[in-house]
Amino acid sequence: MSGPSRHDLADEIDDDRLHEECGVFGIFGHIDAGPLTVLGLHALQHRGQEAAGIVTYDGTQFIAERHAGLVGDIFDESSGHVETLKGEYAVGHNRYSTTGGSTVRNIQPIFADLAGGGIALAHNGNLTNARILRNRLTREGAIFQSTSDTETIVHLVARSTGSMVDRLVDALKQVEGAYSLVALTAKKLIGVRDPHGVRPLVLGDLDGAFILTSETCALDIIGARFVRDINPGELVVITQDGLQSFFPFTPAPRRFCVFEYVYFSRPDSNVEGRNVYDARKAIGEELARESPANADIVIPVPDSGVPAALGYALASGLPFELGIIRNHYVGRTFIAPSDRIRHLSVRLKHNPNRAQLKGKRVVLVDDSIVRGTTSKKIVQMVRDAGAAEVHFRIASPPTTHSCFYGVDTPNSEDLLAHKMDVEGMRRYIGADTLAFVSMDGLYRAVGEPGRRREQPQFCDACFSGDYPIELADKNGGESGRQLSLLAEVA
Amino acid sequence: MSGPSRHDLADEIDDDRLHEECGVFGIFGHIDAGPLTVLGLHALQHRGQEAAGIVTYDGTQFIAERHAGLVGDIFDESSGHVETLKGEYAVGHNRYSTTGGSTVRNIQPIFADLAGGGIALAHNGNLTNARILRNRLTREGAIFQSTSDTETIVHLVARSTGSMVDRLVDALKQVEGAYSLVALTAKKLIGVRDPHGVRPLVLGDLDGAFILTSETCALDIIGARFVRDINPGELVVITQDGLQSFFPFTPAPRRFCVFEYVYFSRPDSNVEGRNVYDARKAIGEELARESPANADIVIPVPDSGVPAALGYALASGLPFELGIIRNHYVGRTFIAPSDRIRHLSVRLKHNPNRAQLKGKRVVLVDDSIVRGTTSKKIVQMVRDAGAAEVHFRIASPPTTHSCFYGVDTPNSEDLLAHKMDVEGMRRYIGADTLAFVSMDGLYRAVGEPGRRREQPQFCDACFSGDYPIELADKNGGESGRQLSLLAEVA
Amino acid sequence: MSGPSRHDLADEIDDDRLHEECGVFGIFGHIDAGPLTVLGLHALQHRGQEAAGIVTYDGTQFIAERHAGLVGDIFDESSGHVETLKGEYAVGHNRYSTTGGSTVRNIQPIFADLAGGGIALAHNGNLTNARILRNRLTREGAIFQSTSDTETIVHLVARSTGSMVDRLVDALKQVEGAYSLVALTAKKLIGVRDPHGVRPLVLGDLDGAFILTSETCALDIIGARFVRDINPGELVVITQDGLQSFFPFTPAPRRFCVFEYVYFSRPDSNVEGRNVYDARKAIGEELARESPANADIVIPVPDSGVPAALGYALASGLPFELGIIRNHYVGRTFIAPSDRIRHLSVRLKHNPNRAQLKGKRVVLVDDSIVRGTTSKKIVQMVRDAGAAEVHFRIASPPTTHSCFYGVDTPNSEDLLAHKMDVEGMRRYIGADTLAFVSMDGLYRAVGEPGRRREQPQFCDACFSGDYPIELADKNGGESGRQLSLLAEVA
Amino acid sequence: MSGPSRHDLADEIDDDRLHEECGVFGIFGHIDAGPLTVLGLHALQHRGQEAAGIVTYDGTQFIAERHAGLVGDIFDESSGHVETLKGEYAVGHNRYSTTGGSTVRNIQPIFADLAGGGIALAHNGNLTNARILRNRLTREGAIFQSTSDTETIVHLVARSTGSMVDRLVDALKQVEGAYSLVALTAKKLIGVRDPHGVRPLVLGDLDGAFILTSETCALDIIGARFVRDINPGELVVITQDGLQSFFPFTPAPRRFCVFEYVYFSRPDSNVEGRNVYDARKAIGEELARESPANADIVIPVPDSGVPAALGYALASGLPFELGIIRNHYVGRTFIAPSDRIRHLSVRLKHNPNRAQLKGKRVVLVDDSIVRGTTSKKIVQMVRDAGAAEVHFRIASPPTTHSCFYGVDTPNSEDLLAHKMDVEGMRRYIGADTLAFVSMDGLYRAVGEPGRRREQPQFCDACFSGDYPIELADKNGGESGRQLSLLAEVA
Repeated sequence: MSGPSRHDLADEIDDDRLHEECGVFGIFGHIDAGPLTVLGLHALQHRGQEAAGIVTYDGTQFIAERHAGLVGDIFDESSGHVETLKGEYAVGHNRYSTTGGSTVRNIQPIFADLAGGGIALAHNGNLTNARILRNRLTREGAIFQSTSDTETIVHLVARSTGSMVDRLVDALKQVEGAYSLVALTAKKLIGVRDPHGVRPLVLGDLDGAFILTSETCALDIIGARFVRDINPGELVVITQDGLQSFFPFTPAPRRFCVFEYVYFSRPDSNVEGRNVYDARKAIGEELARESPANADIVIPVPDSGVPAALGYALASGLPFELGIIRNHYVGRTFIAPSDRIRHLSVRLKHNPNRAQLKGKRVVLVDDSIVRGTTSKKIVQMVRDAGAAEVHFRIASPPTTHSCFYGVDTPNSEDLLAHKMDVEGMRRYIGADTLAFVSMDGLYRAVGEPGRRREQPQFCDACFSGDYPIELADKNGGESGRQLSLLAEVA
Repeated sequence: MSGPSRHDLADEIDDDRLHEECGVFGIFGHIDAGPLTVLGLHALQHRGQEAAGIVTYDGTQFIAERHAGLVGDIFDESSGHVETLKGEYAVGHNRYSTTGGSTVRNIQPIFADLAGGGIALAHNGNLTNARILRNRLTREGAIFQSTSDTETIVHLVARSTGSMVDRLVDALKQVEGAYSLVALTAKKLIGVRDPHGVRPLVLGDLDGAFILTSETCALDIIGARFVRDINPGELVVITQDGLQSFFPFTPAPRRFCVFEYVYFSRPDSNVEGRNVYDARKAIGEELARESPANADIVIPVPDSGVPAALGYALASGLPFELGIIRNHYVGRTFIAPSDRIRHLSVRLKHNPNRAQLKGKRVVLVDDSIVRGTTSKKIVQMVRDAGAAEVHFRIASPPTTHSCFYGVDTPNSEDLLAHKMDVEGMRRYIGADTLAFVSMDGLYRAVGEPGRRREQPQFCDACFSGDYPIELADKNGGESGRQLSLLAEVA
Repeated sequence: MSGPSRHDLADEIDDDRLHEECGVFGIFGHIDAGPLTVLGLHALQHRGQEAAGIVTYDGTQFIAERHAGLVGDIFDESSGHVETLKGEYAVGHNRYSTTGGSTVRNIQPIFADLAGGGIALAHNGNLTNARILRNRLTREGAIFQSTSDTETIVHLVARSTGSMVDRLVDALKQVEGAYSLVALTAKKLIGVRDPHGVRPLVLGDLDGAFILTSETCALDIIGARFVRDINPGELVVITQDGLQSFFPFTPAPRRFCVFEYVYFSRPDSNVEGRNVYDARKAIGEELARESPANADIVIPVPDSGVPAALGYALASGLPFELGIIRNHYVGRTFIAPSDRIRHLSVRLKHNPNRAQLKGKRVVLVDDSIVRGTTSKKIVQMVRDAGAAEVHFRIASPPTTHSCFYGVDTPNSEDLLAHKMDVEGMRRYIGADTLAFVSMDGLYRAVGEPGRRREQPQFCDACFSGDYPIELADKNGGESGRQLSLLAEVA
Repeated sequence: MSGPSRHDLADEIDDDRLHEECGVFGIFGHIDAGPLTVLGLHALQHRGQEAAGIVTYDGTQFIAERHAGLVGDIFDESSGHVETLKGEYAVGHNRYSTTGGSTVRNIQPIFADLAGGGIALAHNGNLTNARILRNRLTREGAIFQSTSDTETIVHLVARSTGSMVDRLVDALKQVEGAYSLVALTAKKLIGVRDPHGVRPLVLGDLDGAFILTSETCALDIIGARFVRDINPGELVVITQDGLQSFFPFTPAPRRFCVFEYVYFSRPDSNVEGRNVYDARKAIGEELARESPANADIVIPVPDSGVPAALGYALASGLPFELGIIRNHYVGRTFIAPSDRIRHLSVRLKHNPNRAQLKGKRVVLVDDSIVRGTTSKKIVQMVRDAGAAEVHFRIASPPTTHSCFYGVDTPNSEDLLAHKMDVEGMRRYIGADTLAFVSMDGLYRAVGEPGRRREQPQFCDACFSGDYPIELADKNGGESGRQLSLLAEVA
């Protein structure tokens, strides 16, 4: 558990990216449940690189391995961690760091020994009334061991009565927010999506064993069959006798997160019925039509800008070239001991291919702009390599608002698009021209005729500020007692 | 946190020893609170070698370092752990492994963020109704994160109301058992001893800062002044304004653990007013008077048998010799890969000095016999080295009963003295003669005229089966729901 | 430095790749010599992922950090290794595992304390008479500490007389093989390329400090200026007074390794005057012209097949798509504990994008085929994802012979193209059609009119069996006394 | 290999001790050769705590495990190091740090692959002409990998001709100094003692397998039989056919190191025919006769002062008490982050038992005084604990000269007895009286009638300045070229 996670560097370099907070995976009744969950989490690594955990049930006891680091490092052969995960039932979780801090106590799946037996919970999303609930529970004598909002759900379950499913439903009726949950008890695997269906959750099948996971790429890696998406507001209970489906919550309009198409999901996943790579390429095509450029070549910011750049090249007829080479051997963070060379760190990951760029008018395609600091460096890097002009094209609308539904975003005031208009952004970044895909262009690319203004088909709050779920903690009068923080290196 | 603790080997070799479960140390208002607590725990290392932890409060937040291993290894310079423990208020704990298992979650001080603020708790002892309380609390929705009985106290505090001291008193009124507790909140250091005063707790002073700790040797190491023993049933509250003393519990007869004199405490400590080395030497003298031997030399089983052997030699007039040399460079466990050489492992720690033993009639003195397995090996080792006769003398009465008050003892059925009489033990161990000090001899050695049968002056349950505190969990009708164990290597 | 290197997995997955054995980097007279060398080695990580080392000279002593692992992990902030590398003079080395084994003793730069002072040596290449020399030296009393051929050079230097440069020249006149060397003494940085110039070596400049390194991408990362390639047979000596150039060896025809263009070098490097990405794209274009396919899409085997696939798409007019997604979060090796799921490991790195492949006739482009095992798996994976036809196109001629000049190749008998003709390979791999670029096509793509048969412009021995440098150890009568191998885990 | 060794702390605390540099152990033809060597080195841990190494030969190759740390930590079960040491032939070494530095390259046994096969060498002692030889060898082209003098021997062997035994004899005829060597080749185990026999070496037998080791306690731990001491100037060669003895060197007077009795050897060892514990007790008796004290109790400085204190008590009739308690759980070094508490570190290891010392006139017995710094602290500690008078008695003559024969001593100018007379030392240390045993008293205690002035029976140079072997490096005109030091953390 020692050493900084690889994610420190990602923080610095991937500054212009939003980060999904989690990936989940559960499997019920397979002899290789533990190793298959390792593979599933490996395929979901892009959804969280800070830590990972798996809890299995071997028929007698629950077994946990929860550690900081990448899945491949944690469940490395030499660790022995895979061997300890015995049993045919497993639930796993990838975690991205949140404000709760990176202590081991916050690594999921969270486990609790309740009066009715043990329960392990893996959560992708974010509760918007967690602090209100936590304050109430603490006043009633609940002792919190982590700072994660997932623990709030567990305490609500602990204080409820009836069957474990009844208690989970009772708990979830009290929470607000976006969530896709997978829970394991001694007898059941349970999956739930919040009523708006903000975060994804899919059902798969391998040799007769059901799987619940965030994306189809986690099914592909183990050769499992995609069965269907879990529906918004649906709760499925998987037991030895099969799968039962319930809709225990008040129905709500579907508002799936459109940013899953823009950046979060893996290009080879199909989310909500649409292939992500196709969607990104289509965004690039829309962008080329909406914002053409008088240029020689189209180059992506690797790797996330590649599909949109291919789409832009296709629609514009300009040649696509790899003008920036990405070094994938990054390892842990290298901190230059001297200010003189600290500015070189951006090149740890990206190097311009001078031979391609020299004298060219370049269309540079990226998926989004967050703070703008890395965009500025990359545009400068392309210019330094000899590009004659840089026309920056962004495969999403301007990111103007923070996300409160399970994505790690800066405060609004740190978002470049919150602080200035497109022309201001262009000057800040130093591009010759700058254009974003329009909101309707984005909706068209993902298969809609356009954005339905009165009731948008997706959650696009980060672009529009239109938050489908109330932000109780943020807006509530209850100011939130400051926790007695316990700083711990474990 | 990697690597097995040194205690694995101790288990094997120190088979004929009981093990104290804990040492505690707290200090209030000293600029070096963290490092002084490290030193204090170092001096108390004999009370628990599996793990150690310290929680400090720096005026804003609580900071914890809790790790498996020896104090000197955990708080080694290269670890950086001492540096992180900022603040003038600290509480620390040494832990010996218990049935709760050795996961990091069980390492104390336990910390909880309650509605009234944070509290860190270090506990030496054992609750005899912990399971009953835990079952009740779990049914009410409490979520336990560890398997330690200390967490039970914290949940009771969490559910009580009033000031933190009131809540702690309220909680302790519900528990039964033996305990010496030190608790740290943002404003107070609190110490408590159970009404019978089974486990020790002393008050010290360094440069005006109060200290609460298990033994005086932890005061000596930091140059602190011994003030007094905390009384049975006393609760002291230390704040910026000084110390307040309370006696909130129903009074009970004093029953201090007599085994603290026999083995647990360090020879240079004074416990309950008597020097431990003196007491052990006096036991050896009583033993010589009660059970003389026709022999040439007196040799101790090092190191714990040394004072009693010196006493025996003094009273008998026989010469004292170091006939067994102890190797202190033991390190972690060495497991022989071959059965052929596994039996050699006893010699990792002890080697007979053949030149001293050859042809001699030997009085061999040890502090106690638990399972008898090591005694048997040591007697054989002394014989193999050429001793003509081995007269085994034990500086405590036969250990016939398990302890339930905070000492790690085997089940009664594994205690040699539970299974056979002294002659049977002699044959099993292979000594020419075997004798134990009498109960009255032991009481005389620690300053009493003899054992007061109707109301013994000490807890001597391990020798007598006379348990001063009810064993509710053990005897209770409530069978104790099996916990959903969570096996975790952290 | 514990734990297996990331390269274990690469071995398994990148089975159809040859591996460059080393990258070198030296810098003379820069205040940040150590950290800049770390960055340079980071940019050269693709040339060797097993281990890395740096030796600096601080004006008084040489300082070494040599460890197994990736550059970014070894010189991670928490390691403190960068801080220890004081001084303005540095030489560094990336290592790929060779038959010499992966013990720490084999990690370069190799350092020796000779009568004339200390020397640190970093070597890219392989000596073809190392065993003969080693046997001779051993008979004369030399003691070898490693199994690397680089040490042979050091012993020859040690036994020579005159200035350090004279001694190095004297030593190199005795060796045969391919090498690009960088050596650091207390006063000089020395660079040498073998007379044929098989391996690359370039000269750069940063703020007036000279740099010698394997590829231009290592200059780019630190913002250094490319000065020129070091010439075949050239030895440059860099001192405080500047650079001197010597040609001490018998001239020989230039035979630069053509595989550097095919796979080894980074696409953003310019080697011997030509951009690697351009060369690869041109190979793809040649391949499209020579071996067109009746297909719907062109997809690369990522990442190395991308530029050739782009060239193929361009020349053929077929659309380029990312049909296989590569997961870059690989971490260390994950060994499945069960045979049932071991076959899944290929998907740790590559996942087909089913939505793109379903029903399509696919041109699949890769850079080379070595054993063919991974090619077979990837073709199968593409078919399983629904491709109607798979037309496999390889951007190099068939690899029929082992390399003895510093590249890790299987024995000839394990090379697929050694064992069977193209039709046999097609059947083995399971493609509908299979074609390799022709030798002349390859030469045209790198700027030649075609291959000059009597005196080829490059070393292409792996494709042609035409070895420009005699293989003395392999062919020599001297059978090579078996070394007394010393197995050591350090 | 991580972390500082435990010896850092020993350095600080055991300041008034000299340190033996090495222990050696070899065994030939036992199925458990590796594990038995681990046990043997464990028993010899007192002779070197910085690092340990073992080389085995498994019939095909040599296998080495050489690491920093204690034997029990290095060969801990979890390390897997014992398992790798296959084979029936083994040689091992414990190392104490020397000026050569603590890099892994200096850890013995040193191994070299020579023209005649592999050889592993473990060396206890020090060569007095190593630098002269090293300079000569370096000029001839030898490359040194370590800074240890043992490597000099290996280079001399490498450059010699004939059988391996002939070559070793040839090499040893060129060296001067004190040595007890054990060497392992593919077919032989060889033991040698220098002509004066300064350092010990004994022959043992286990189940028909011969053993060569430094002390008999290493035979005891594995249940081996002591056969005899190897004689000064004797070389024994052990093969499958048995043991052959040679005396290839010019005979010289026997000068065994008398300090082995005073402090270095373990009390349960018999060295040169005399039990060490007996010898120490006899020294204490001589001391009591020569320098009685008007006192109440005799207390040892634990642990090394115990036997002499017992002897003093016996001869003086005063009672022996453990007035200072030693804490054996020291772990790694704890560096206090504050000057305010740094002075407490002496108490990490020793605590006075106030109850025993208060008001008493104390005879305090220690084995020797080196720098005097710890003696001063201990006397002060005893006084602070309430002692009325402190009469310090030392079980060796004043240590006035450095050792050059394999013992780590400060420069003469740092030896307290070099700087002042006994009265000056008494004042510095703060004792009421101070006395050392006389040289003749020491000789009597180890069985001689007294010291033979013209030809002393032992090497006692540290007390007398009478060096039996010429100090060529120290006295020689050749100033010794400074090595190009290579600083390396491995």
